[in-house]
Parts: sequence; structure tokens; C-alpha cells
Amino acid sequence: MSTQELYSELVTRLKKTSLLASCSAVLGWDEQVNMPPQGAEHRANQLALLAGMTHEQSTSSRVGELLSQLDEADDLGPEGSDQRVIVREARRNYDRATKLPQRLVEEISRTTTLAQQAWVGARKARDYSQFQSWLEQVLNLKREEAEAIGYGDGQPYDALLDDYEPGATAAAVQAAFEPLRDELVPLVAAIGESSHKPNSSIVTRSYPVSAQREFGLKAAEAIGFSFDAGRLDIAAHPFCSGFGPGDCRLTTRYDEHHFPGAFFGTLHEAGHGIYEQGLNGDAFGTALGESVSLGIHESQSRMWENLVGRSHPFWEFFYPQAQQAFPEALGNVPLDDFHRAVNDVRPSFIRVEADEVTYNLHIMLRFELEQAMLSGDLKPVDVPAVWNETFTRYFGITPEHDSDGCLQDIHWSAGLLGYFPTYALGNMYAAQFFESADRDLGDLSDMFRRGEFAPLKDWLRKNIHQQGKRYHAQQLVQHVTGEPLSHAPLMRHLNNRFKPLYELN
Amino acid sequence: MSTQELYSELVTRLKKTSLLASCSAVLGWDEQVNMPPQGAEHRANQLALLAGMTHEQSTSSRVGELLSQLDEADDLGPEGSDQRVIVREARRNYDRATKLPQRLVEEISRTTTLAQQAWVGARKARDYSQFQSWLEQVLNLKREEAEAIGYGDGQPYDALLDDYEPGATAAAVQAAFEPLRDELVPLVAAIGESSHKPNSSIVTRSYPVSAQREFGLKAAEAIGFSFDAGRLDIAAHPFCSGFGPGDCRLTTRYDEHHFPGAFFGTLHEAGHGIYEQGLNGDAFGTALGESVSLGIHESQSRMWENLVGRSHPFWEFFYPQAQQAFPEALGNVPLDDFHRAVNDVRPSFIRVEADEVTYNLHIMLRFELEQAMLSGDLKPVDVPAVWNETFTRYFGITPEHDSDGCLQDIHWSAGLLGYFPTYALGNMYAAQFFESADRDLGDLSDMFRRGEFAPLKDWLRKNIHQQGKRYHAQQLVQHVTGEPLSHAPLMRHLNNRFKPLYELN
Repeated sequence: MSTQELYSELVTRLKKTSLLASCSAVLGWDEQVNMPPQGAEHRANQLALLAGMTHEQSTSSRVGELLSQLDEADDLGPEGSDQRVIVREARRNYDRATKLPQRLVEEISRTTTLAQQAWVGARKARDYSQFQSWLEQVLNLKREEAEAIGYGDGQPYDALLDDYEPGATAAAVQAAFEPLRDELVPLVAAIGESSHKPNSSIVTRSYPVSAQREFGLKAAEAIGFSFDAGRLDIAAHPFCSGFGPGDCRLTTRYDEHHFPGAFFGTLHEAGHGIYEQGLNGDAFGTALGESVSLGIHESQSRMWENLVGRSHPFWEFFYPQAQQAFPEALGNVPLDDFHRAVNDVRPSFIRVEADEVTYNLHIMLRFELEQAMLSGDLKPVDVPAVWNETFTRYFGITPEHDSDGCLQDIHWSAGLLGYFPTYALGNMYAAQFFESADRDLGDLSDMFRRGEFAPLKDWLRKNIHQQGKRYHAQQLVQHVTGEPLSHAPLMRHLNNRFKPLYELN
Repeated sequence: MSTQELYSELVTRLKKTSLLASCSAVLGWDEQVNMPPQGAEHRANQLALLAGMTHEQSTSSRVGELLSQLDEADDLGPEGSDQRVIVREARRNYDRATKLPQRLVEEISRTTTLAQQAWVGARKARDYSQFQSWLEQVLNLKREEAEAIGYGDGQPYDALLDDYEPGATAAAVQAAFEPLRDELVPLVAAIGESSHKPNSSIVTRSYPVSAQREFGLKAAEAIGFSFDAGRLDIAAHPFCSGFGPGDCRLTTRYDEHHFPGAFFGTLHEAGHGIYEQGLNGDAFGTALGESVSLGIHESQSRMWENLVGRSHPFWEFFYPQAQQAFPEALGNVPLDDFHRAVNDVRPSFIRVEADEVTYNLHIMLRFELEQAMLSGDLKPVDVPAVWNETFTRYFGITPEHDSDGCLQDIHWSAGLLGYFPTYALGNMYAAQFFESADRDLGDLSDMFRRGEFAPLKDWLRKNIHQQGKRYHAQQLVQHVTGEPLSHAPLMRHLNNRFKPLYELN
């Protein structure tokens, strides 16, 4: 077979496997959004079958043969060509999928299922001791996984991180996080000491759910999410799921007495959705039609949620519509008071409820602890004490029980070690991309004031979405912004936004 | 391998294939209910992939080997045992799936896709000539299919009918339809001549959609559809889809100015759904966990829609609630007037809008014509004239154009020849089952008056739903009612209901 024939067979197989996996996405979405309670067991059977068949296809020996032959081909185009990128990523995925012994995959699946059950009970009972031995077992299995995957000259943590953020290393993340933390901790403290507090009760008045839904739909559409190629539904745990070209589903949840939850949640998921809708549909199933990483995905959601959606210019455009939609709650509230209320910063125990400033500290805390746990420097028995001690150092407050502390997140019980850093990386990428877009496009603020979001969306589409996985995250940042990843743009953004709001300096 | 090992491998394979097919059901439902317009192409790709994989599994040579060995086994239990039933039906399905050459399957798929497009255009243009050559092609392919499947001593039509109504033959259907037609035609004429007409404007007043939905949900639940194991949504073309144990989806559509459409549509689909929910979930994937046939399925929907839902006792219970739900429309309307309005009988051109009495004549007309078309006695060029001539004879009215006549249904363009009879068979089965249930349970009317529907539902579950495909339709009717299929129960029902309503005799 010629190189082109080998390549073409590989692409056909990749596309077929992705197509099959995208069927699971539909079933998974339906499970969260529509499924009646008694359908759970059958749905689990369906998803297990599809997952097994997808795994079989992606680890088939024929794919291994094709890759071996293509690895040696010298006529696949220059470094960085479409074909080379697609083969490079196919190799990466194949290696990750085949390096783990079946026994380990099954043991991780079984153990994390049970560990999640134990975590639910422990969290409810506020009793870490119920979870401790499960954490021990998960750590052992994840260490085994890291060894099986390999991590070159790096550390075991790299092998896990790489699953979510290809090409990233713990050392590089650490180098990005440290200066960020050094500037964030004093900023959080200064905000805490400011006497100029927002009136946060504004956003907990009555916001009728149907008006919230309509207003959220309007905003998501305005920033560029296409409802001809997507939907917005309700789910207990909001998410975005791209099924493939032309079909991307957003979910949110509504609380009549908390406006920001659903609204910024909708913008956040719409940001993910705009990324999915911006991918090159013709390249579906190959690296060129796929998102780069969890961190880059998060950069898109956080950009629309925070850099755009919580900005003053955004609300200069949208606030009159908000007042129309919620006359009871907002009729008499000046724009600036509302804007301050949706930018309320205060130390809090729960990550998923944290504001834009403190959020990153929640992540760094977890990153430090899970590195230490994986290396063995931190024993599971000591996790609650170390959590609380670090938390107090960062936030100036101490959790009263572990359910507000080290038991709050599902991630460790689910085996998702190495996942947390992508959230804060997303915030850093977002700020750095946004500065570049602002430089390239002129004054974004002025566009937002006029309700013009298409220029930013188109810039993101061209520079990020349409690139697929051509570059890994670090290279993409360098390529798009001309600089390596840095904490500086995020800190500039946070200082520019919050120092005036809290009348600091 | 022992017989038990062979059998056990067969069952594992059958269940896996059904599980995979049930994933398609989820995607198909989502396509009708939720999918955004731009998702159509990707969804078609997903469904084609799953259909191909399902076909591959159900025609795998290993299944053929297992069946050959099991055919010869003498230790599979007595005739009629669970194992024998499951193997019998697996053989039936395997033979049907493997007898058709791949070329023919693909040609039918391609031709019917194009024929449906031509049909849409022809129907819109009211121009049969645009469709005629496509009908010719479809007929040729279906004749080829019938030859490939085989039909013993019968006629080619039997091979097609057997796909929807296993075990049925054109001759048997004919024998059941003829006496029915002979009694229906004069009944329709007599009703038409009656001066005692219902005030049908009652049901076209304003019925707010949200109240319709709520009232429909309440009624569906009351007759026994479980919303812990199902849902009701909106779709342009209402249907019921059972995904598997614990998950069955109903759809309907609402018109503010037509109460019966959504309400009886909901009862109809709930009837299908109660059958699906009544199947033996443990036997999922085998014949014992499957419905018998389209006709038996239709008997369940038509029973709840018509025999129960349009009965006077049903409304003695529900009418006060209806008046509460629709005070503007029904506040001043006496029960009897309402009951007469939802039992309005009049000859009409369109089958899907037909009442309970005339509906069967619509089916018989199609049954006659498609038999003649398949045998070659009726040439496609002559279809419009023969349609109109027969229609006039049955109904006393003549369609003005072919879109109200032979172009109204999608079935022939989609290659669904042999499908129509199952609708009328369903009505006959329903009446015959209902008489037996009434005999077994005492006075059903009295139960309905008290809102008690569980006895009928439980009777159906035990006698029909839980039997799976143990019996084919004709044997099931004999087994459950003690009589062979007869037109008499349906005619008794229609005469008992409509003669008083129209003051005949």
C-alpha cells in the first residue's frame, strides 16, 4: 500500500471511531437531561457496550500496523502539515489507549465507582475517615497508571496531567502558578479589607425562571452560539456536549433567587459551545477537528463568562434588556450597583461557587496537594490537616468540616488526578488570548458597548477553533499571542477590574 | 459445546445486538424531538453506522452456526418452552436478514430514499405523474424481495406482510376483512344519513396547550403509563419508542383549536407505551421480551384510545376534570354533547384524520390496491383511477386530487408494502381482546366510571405483554380469547357505540 492509501485507511478508521464515540455523547446527554429514573440500568448497559466497542476500534491491531508504517513513511508532507499532525495525534491516542493493561483499566473503573459511592457517603456524613482508604487505593492505581503511560524525564504527575492537557508538565504548571499565587493572595486580602463592598442582595431577589431562560438564550445567541446547531436545556450538573458537526448541547440550572448562577453558567457553557461550533466539521474525527485540551476549552468558556460577560461594557449594552426582563428586581437598580454585585469577590470554602479572583487559589491548593499525594510526600491520613492549613494561608478562613474542605470535589474519588490545573490554566490562557485579540481588533470594550461580539468570536474561530489540535496548548499560546504562557495578563485583568471596584490603591 | 453452551452464547449475542439497536432508538427519538436543524447530516451518519454494525452482528456467520447446531439439538426442551421459542424466533430473524442479498438491500434503501423525495414533491404539486415511475421501481424491488424471502404455497404479498405481522397471510387477512367491509359500508352510509349529528365545534374551541399537556399527562398516568419509566414530548409526527427496560418515550403534538388530536393521540401512544412497559425486561433482547407484531402493538394503542378513551364511562370519570382544565371551552357543555363530539363519524379523504368507524375502510382500500399492484393486476398508471373509484364505492365521496387520494401516505414510497393491514388488524384484535377482558374481569365500564384502569392493564400485561413473542398474532388471539380472529367483536363494538349515538334502528 502507498503512504496515501495507508493514511486514507487510518483516517477512515479514526472517523468511524469518533462517530461511534459521538453516539455515546448523545446517550450521555440524554441521561443527564431526559432519562426517566428507571432507565438508568439499561442506559448504563448501552453506554458500556458503546464504550467497549469504541475502545476495541481505537486499540485495534490494524490501527497499530497503519501507524507503524506511517511512522516510517518519508512522504507524508513536511513537519506541521495536516497529515503529519493527524498521524502524530493518532499515534499519541493509540499509545495512551494501548499502554494500559486491560486489568488496570478495569480495576480503575471498578475502584473509582466504589470510591465515588464512598465519597458521597463521607461528604454527607462530614466524615473523612470513610473516604481515606479509598483515596489510598485510587492513588495506588493512578501511580500504576502513570508508570504504565511513562513520563520521560519528568514526574509521575506529568503522565496524568498529559491526559487532559497534552504536552503540559507539572513543572511548567508550577512555574506559571507560583507568580500568580504570589500576586493573588495579597489581592484577595486587600479586597477583603476594603470597606467598599457591593450590595450582593441585588442578585438574590426574585428572578422568574422563564425570564431567566429567555434572557440567557438571548445573551448566548448574541455572543455567537448558534441555536440552529445547538440547544440549551436543564441539567442538575451543567455541562456542554458537542455531538459532532452541527449539534452542540448546552445545559444549565435555574434558581429563582440567584441570578448569576444560571446566567453566567449559560455564558460559560455557550463559550464551550462556540468552541465546538467553531471546529472544522470536515475534519471531524481527526486531530484537526478536535479541541486542543481541557485548559484551552476552559479558556473559551471563562473568556465569555468573565472577561466578556462580567465586564462593564457588556452590561452597558445588556443592562437595559435585563431591567426589562426583571423589572421587579432591577427596575430601580443603577447599572454600576448591578455590575458590582455580579463581581462580588470574597473568600469562600466551595470552589464551584468561587468568584473570578479567588477561584485560582482553590485550584492551586488542589494542585499542590495532589502532587504531594501522588509522590507520597502527603499521606491520605494527613490530607484534611494540610488542606485546612493551606486554605487558611491562602484565604484567611478555615473550613469547619471536611465537606467544606477536602471532601467537596468528586474528582479524586473519580480518579481524575491532574484535572484540576486545567481550570486555572484556562483562566490564564483566556486573559492572554483576550489581550491579543484586543490588540489585533482594536478596542473590544467599545464593540461590546454596541453589542458587537462577532469580531471576537471570529478572531477566536480563526486563531484557535479552526486550528484543531495542530498545536498543543503551550505552542498555541506562543503562536497566537507571540509570548509563552504567563500569569501577567490574568493579573493585569484582575487588577484592572477589581482594584477600581473595591477602590484599592 | 453442549446445547446449553450453544444456547447461552446465542442469547448473549442476541442481547448484545438488541442493546446496540436500542442505542439507535435513542438517537432516532432525539432526532425527532430535540435535534437542531444543522445536526441532521451528522445524525444520519451516526444512525447509518449503528445500523450497519447491528446488521453485521445479526447476520454474523457465528449466529448461523449456533442456530444450525441448535436446530439439530434434541435437548432444548419441549415445543413451546422458553428456549425453543427464543431459538425459533432467532432463526426466523436470521433467515430474513440473510436471505436478502446485500445488493438488493442497498438498492431498496437508495431507491426508497429517492422515491420518498419524489413523493414529497408529487404530493405537494398534486401531480401523481411525478411519482408513478418511482412506484414502479419500488414495486419491482419489493417483488424481488418477496421472491428472495419466499412465501411457501402462498403469494408474494405474504412475504412482505410477514415482516410486520409474523405468520399472517394475505388470504387470512382477506378473510377477516371481507365480512368487516360488508358490514362497515352500510353502517357508514347510515351514519351519514342520520340527522342526529354531534356539535363538533365543541372540540375546536380554545384549549390552551399547557392545560392540554397537563390533562394528557394525567390521563396517560391514570390508564397505567409510568412516568418513572417514560416521558411525553412533542414531535411533528407522533410516535412511541421503547428504548428498553425502564425507558419508553411517547410523543404527541398540540393544536390549541383541536382537543382530540393531542388527547387521543396521547392515549394512543400511551397504549403502545403500556405494552412496552409491560414486556418482560429480564428477557430483553430475546423473543420473550419482544412485542408480537405491529398489529398486536396497534391493538394496545387502539384499545386505550378508542375502546377505553372514547367510551362514555371513561368520560363519566374524566369529564369533571376536563371541565376544570378547560373551563372556557367546556364549562357549559353537558357530558353527552362532549362525548358525542369526540365520537364524530364522517367520511373523509385522509386516513390519519379518520374516525374509528371509517378508518378500517381506508385500510381495506389500500390492502386491495397494494395486493393488485404487487401481483401486477394493477399497473401504477391506473392507481389514481382505481383508488378514486374504490373510494367512492366505500365512502360515497370522491377525492378531488391525488394528494387527498393515492398520494396521501408515505408508505409506498418508503417501500412499506404489507404494512397497512396491521392497522385494521389492530382494531379487530383490540375489540376481541376487550370482549374477553370484559368477560374475565366483570364489568369494565363500571371500573372506568370509578377511574379504575389497573384491572384492564394488569389483564393485558399478564395475557399479552408478558408473553412476548411466544405466540404469533393468530395463535395469541386464539389462546387469549378462545376463538380465532373474527370481525364480529369489532362490529359489535361499533354498532353498540355508534347506533345509539346516531339514533340508528
